[in-house]
Amino acid sequence: MNCKEEESKAGTRFRMVKERHSKRFNKARKEKEADERMIPLCKFIAGTKNYFTSSSCAGRILLLKVNEKGDKKKASFHRKWHRKVKLEEVWNGIEEKVNERELWFKMEPFIIHVGTHSLDKANKLLEVMNKAGVKRGGIIVAKKGKFIVEMSGTQNMAFPVKIGEKIIIEKNYLKKGIEKANWKIEKNYWNLKRVEKEMKKELK
Amino acid sequence: MNCKEEESKAGTRFRMVKERHSKRFNKARKEKEADERMIPLCKFIAGTKNYFTSSSCAGRILLLKVNEKGDKKKASFHRKWHRKVKLEEVWNGIEEKVNERELWFKMEPFIIHVGTHSLDKANKLLEVMNKAGVKRGGIIVAKKGKFIVEMSGTQNMAFPVKIGEKIIIEKNYLKKGIEKANWKIEKNYWNLKRVEKEMKKELK
Repeated sequence: MNCKEEESKAGTRFRMVKERHSKRFNKARKEKEADERMIPLCKFIAGTKNYFTSSSCAGRILLLKVNEKGDKKKASFHRKWHRKVKLEEVWNGIEEKVNERELWFKMEPFIIHVGTHSLDKANKLLEVMNKAGVKRGGIIVAKKGKFIVEMSGTQNMAFPVKIGEKIIIEKNYLKKGIEKANWKIEKNYWNLKRVEKEMKKELK
Repeated sequence: MNCKEEESKAGTRFRMVKERHSKRFNKARKEKEADERMIPLCKFIAGTKNYFTSSSCAGRILLLKVNEKGDKKKASFHRKWHRKVKLEEVWNGIEEKVNERELWFKMEPFIIHVGTHSLDKANKLLEVMNKAGVKRGGIIVAKKGKFIVEMSGTQNMAFPVKIGEKIIIEKNYLKKGIEKANWKIEKNYWNLKRVEKEMKKELK
């Protein structure tokens, strides 16, 4: 196979991957499974010629069950919100029985995966990242015809609230923690908007 | 300039950058400023033909001063430990006057920057990352002759302990938090050892 044939093959492969991801996104949107705040950005990227998105999350506040060893592999969601939270709903989640494990309060930033077909275009994504003030991320896949850039925010919080059946946190302290988490998630969504804006300016 | 000349120029540039970073590392080591736990890894990388390290940190527990808006740009260290901590030393740090700001307790994972000269070699670093079970990181600079890969752990904790002059955390709860942070930093150092081991196996 000569260079030209190989390039054209890589091009076809890229278009197929892009189409598959677009379909998956549209399906998730119809079934209301897509993260609302990610839709404008994902929609825009699906409409470009050179890029596609795979898994992404706009950022969230959660109660996470972890096993005694803090092993993330064995962690699972107990509650999950893609928005600011109220003290009472979090407290209710904490009071509910959680089967002998640890329960953690967490605020996690946005994470976006954008795919493209060349190193040049992947570099364009790194440029957008920098312009949007995103400090964390990089090219995580760099193969012929397939490049994936991950970018994520830096706002985060994590602290334990329950060990076994014992609530170890004071409600009054949790209230303060939630105020901070709500401020951080708003800042995170604002940062995500900035990424969206830069992408709309720069990507084709 | 033809291709061969350009390549040789890029090669010279790479060797110069590598030498500069090696010198900086040796200076930091002599002046006892290098992070002890990073030394075996940095030393190994300095001895390879194709790689160099720039800034890195083995992971730490800290008390961080942040301004009222939680702006990280205006954050600064109040206390910093590259090891497990004791309740009393953290509590002493919290009790000390911190000038009208917020004080946060944080546990941060290792972060390593490794530079190389080609996409092929950068891909080798991504491969090492995967083999070592490192979930976060990627190629953050991808220019002709200069590639930098960032990799970092995922263990982290963050919660506020003081707002203005008011300590908002109970000592007893902090004790539990510190137990978790100590467990997490040990896990983090173990993960870093795994990275070191994989690098020694794979990088030349």
